[in-house]
Amino acid sequence: MFDSTIYAARRARLAQSGLSGVAVFPGNVEAPMNYTDNCYPFRQDSTFLYYFGHDLPGLWGTLDLDTGEAVLWGEDATMDDIIWTGPLPSVAQRAERVGAQGSGSLRALMDVLRAAGKGGRQVHTLPQYRAENRERMAAMLGVSQDAVNAAPSRALALAIIDQRSCKAPEEIDELEKAQLVSRQMYDVAMRMARPGVTEREIAGALTGVVARAGGLHSFPTILTTHGETLHQHAHDGVLEAGRMLLIDSGAESLEHYASDITRSFPVNGRFDTRQRELYAILHDAQVAACEACAPGVSFRDIHLKTARRIAEGLTELGIMRGNPEDAVDAGAHAVFFPHGLGHMMGLDVHDMEGFGEDLVGYGEGVERSPQFGLSALRFARTLQPGHVVTVEPGLYFIPALLDKWKTERRHEAFIDYARVESYMDFGGMRLEDDVLITGDGARILGPGIPKSIEDIEAAMQS
Amino acid sequence: MFDSTIYAARRARLAQSGLSGVAVFPGNVEAPMNYTDNCYPFRQDSTFLYYFGHDLPGLWGTLDLDTGEAVLWGEDATMDDIIWTGPLPSVAQRAERVGAQGSGSLRALMDVLRAAGKGGRQVHTLPQYRAENRERMAAMLGVSQDAVNAAPSRALALAIIDQRSCKAPEEIDELEKAQLVSRQMYDVAMRMARPGVTEREIAGALTGVVARAGGLHSFPTILTTHGETLHQHAHDGVLEAGRMLLIDSGAESLEHYASDITRSFPVNGRFDTRQRELYAILHDAQVAACEACAPGVSFRDIHLKTARRIAEGLTELGIMRGNPEDAVDAGAHAVFFPHGLGHMMGLDVHDMEGFGEDLVGYGEGVERSPQFGLSALRFARTLQPGHVVTVEPGLYFIPALLDKWKTERRHEAFIDYARVESYMDFGGMRLEDDVLITGDGARILGPGIPKSIEDIEAAMQS
Repeated sequence: MFDSTIYAARRARLAQSGLSGVAVFPGNVEAPMNYTDNCYPFRQDSTFLYYFGHDLPGLWGTLDLDTGEAVLWGEDATMDDIIWTGPLPSVAQRAERVGAQGSGSLRALMDVLRAAGKGGRQVHTLPQYRAENRERMAAMLGVSQDAVNAAPSRALALAIIDQRSCKAPEEIDELEKAQLVSRQMYDVAMRMARPGVTEREIAGALTGVVARAGGLHSFPTILTTHGETLHQHAHDGVLEAGRMLLIDSGAESLEHYASDITRSFPVNGRFDTRQRELYAILHDAQVAACEACAPGVSFRDIHLKTARRIAEGLTELGIMRGNPEDAVDAGAHAVFFPHGLGHMMGLDVHDMEGFGEDLVGYGEGVERSPQFGLSALRFARTLQPGHVVTVEPGLYFIPALLDKWKTERRHEAFIDYARVESYMDFGGMRLEDDVLITGDGARILGPGIPKSIEDIEAAMQS
Repeated sequence: MFDSTIYAARRARLAQSGLSGVAVFPGNVEAPMNYTDNCYPFRQDSTFLYYFGHDLPGLWGTLDLDTGEAVLWGEDATMDDIIWTGPLPSVAQRAERVGAQGSGSLRALMDVLRAAGKGGRQVHTLPQYRAENRERMAAMLGVSQDAVNAAPSRALALAIIDQRSCKAPEEIDELEKAQLVSRQMYDVAMRMARPGVTEREIAGALTGVVARAGGLHSFPTILTTHGETLHQHAHDGVLEAGRMLLIDSGAESLEHYASDITRSFPVNGRFDTRQRELYAILHDAQVAACEACAPGVSFRDIHLKTARRIAEGLTELGIMRGNPEDAVDAGAHAVFFPHGLGHMMGLDVHDMEGFGEDLVGYGEGVERSPQFGLSALRFARTLQPGHVVTVEPGLYFIPALLDKWKTERRHEAFIDYARVESYMDFGGMRLEDDVLITGDGARILGPGIPKSIEDIEAAMQS
């Protein structure tokens, strides 16, 4: 946990955002796996962590948006609990630990919230992404479960997004710690990868690295020699010579700040000609995209610029044709790069996505495009100092998608489907780094993970 | 997955259990971690796995208890899905894979269930341990969420318990596979343990072993040099010379059958005199308990016999006094061994606990004792061939509990509180194996994990 003054300052800023009423922050409870008492590793709600710090189940926080008073709510351990758990701090002590003004029981919270509602004060709640929390919130407010997510406070969500979007120094320290774990993960993966090794063994080894560092994965690992299958979590393949291995993985620091890194490298440890040609396109586009990040620059524009670079490269190889800029305007490149350039990252790997992707990533007059590819861009805002975004272009040959477009003769002015045939078995690649926007530019977080062809080949030989 | 005939035979047996109506088995959905789309590793519901085999989210199964007809329900992948996931089997193909007679959409299932209810047929449901499933079940049946768990079918639960309690050969094979992972886990742990190593590093290494084998932990690892704190999952300690390290951990096979093993060993790799004396008591009691397991024997009696052996040993050391049998009748031993001897194990580490612990572990005229210690015994039935139970006595010095009892002068005829003082800093130990009841006795599952003083010391030197 951070110092209590950090949580107090965060809450004070939220209370100064111009809202009135009471904001309610339910912490998470345990998530049952295969019966009530057999649970997944506990993961606290990120917004609760941000304002109330405590990383254990069953707590609630409230913030009076008019007075700035914060209260932590929960149940003290009983003597029976203490026998099994050892001595534990009281809720009052925990409240003090995060600079809250008061503490109380869940029963008292219920009375306070229902009285506030009856007294005409606005009770601000956030969308609840766990059904357990929808149940708890419904019981707490005395409303139906359907009502819980019917009217979340958009104003509260926007105020929190505004605050959490720009990372403070102590948050950047944590993000860097997660990067150190990612570095170890890719060291292990690049050493292990060779023909005949199973995806499961490497994915498991990555989980071991993350667990030894004491954290959780920030999201389920994608590890596959079929990178063209974007939603591939099975890890049931065997590495075959001649294919590229794509690993998109991340860790959380002990304070639950995320890393999210993707590397793609040849199973054999050496790029063959086709891999080298395609990888160079992707690598150059990704490096340029990272370099383009700076305060005041639209992330949507960087996405489009990256798409143009990829289209240019594919045009040089004869896979695409015509004017690359026109191709991107028309959306033709998206058959090879069908997703967005990146997303915000912080306490959540897709930071604050629980509030709604568009609330976090759009606004300022920018609306989500309906065009295939661009429509998948999660974050389209103007970059500001303190933003942390992923920069993760990809280059894929997705047979089902290419066949569909070819049959529909879609964008055939820009795509040489005959030439594409010889790439149908290639698979897919993605490259991703996490970029912090600074006062005058940007820097890639972390100690550096092999990314250039030379560095990857060197790492895989060692 | 097993052969389709296995699932068909399991369902056929359930349909022959004398019940009438329709049994509904919701498979699990993804469990959100910190926002809707960022989920924990998927864990299918065990009962769904048992009867319908498929290990992916969003499916439902029904079994007509009158006709024996089984139907698998779910939604086929759309073209959009296939682009991202690659080609997937249809629900109809999946139904065939598990020998079900039919398949349909979730909308069709809703119509069928609501029609069955209106037509006066009994719709049997099981208690739902995940809030997501309570929501889904409520929507499916057209009832309130509170109603979902208000009236589960006790008859269906009892019929399933009867069936799942006795493990078939293919299940025993899976249980043995999980044991092989446990063996690797303890090899790693015994090699890593030494003063100065953190609990987190060892716990993380165990997670790595489990993940590389492709499975999940069957439950959250307990790994602590404060074994006397029974509910200790934090792993935030550093191993100190002179203490015992307790590790209670398990893995799942790829088909989700559990292992659950506990070992306790000295951080230094060598037992000192006090550790040796206490460990010998626990070890001998645990070995005798495993040997006592056989068809027709009451597990409750083995629990009590084990308690007496521990009381005898503690009496020899002067920690307890008086007649050990009387001490156990009075419950005095329970301050040192406050939990039950074990529980059933199978697809769930506490097998079928979601149906209710007493439904699984009691019955046959045996009711749960209210006496401290014995009241915590999860399984008290007569053993039958095919039962798999854990045998896990423990021996703890829990300062908060001992202080409480001493102050209350509780059982002072049997406990020498003055002598106990010199053990207050000892901590706690537990030893656990998983035992299969055979036709004429029992055998400990797995390839053998060092347990005797000699074997542990040898393993830790190597």
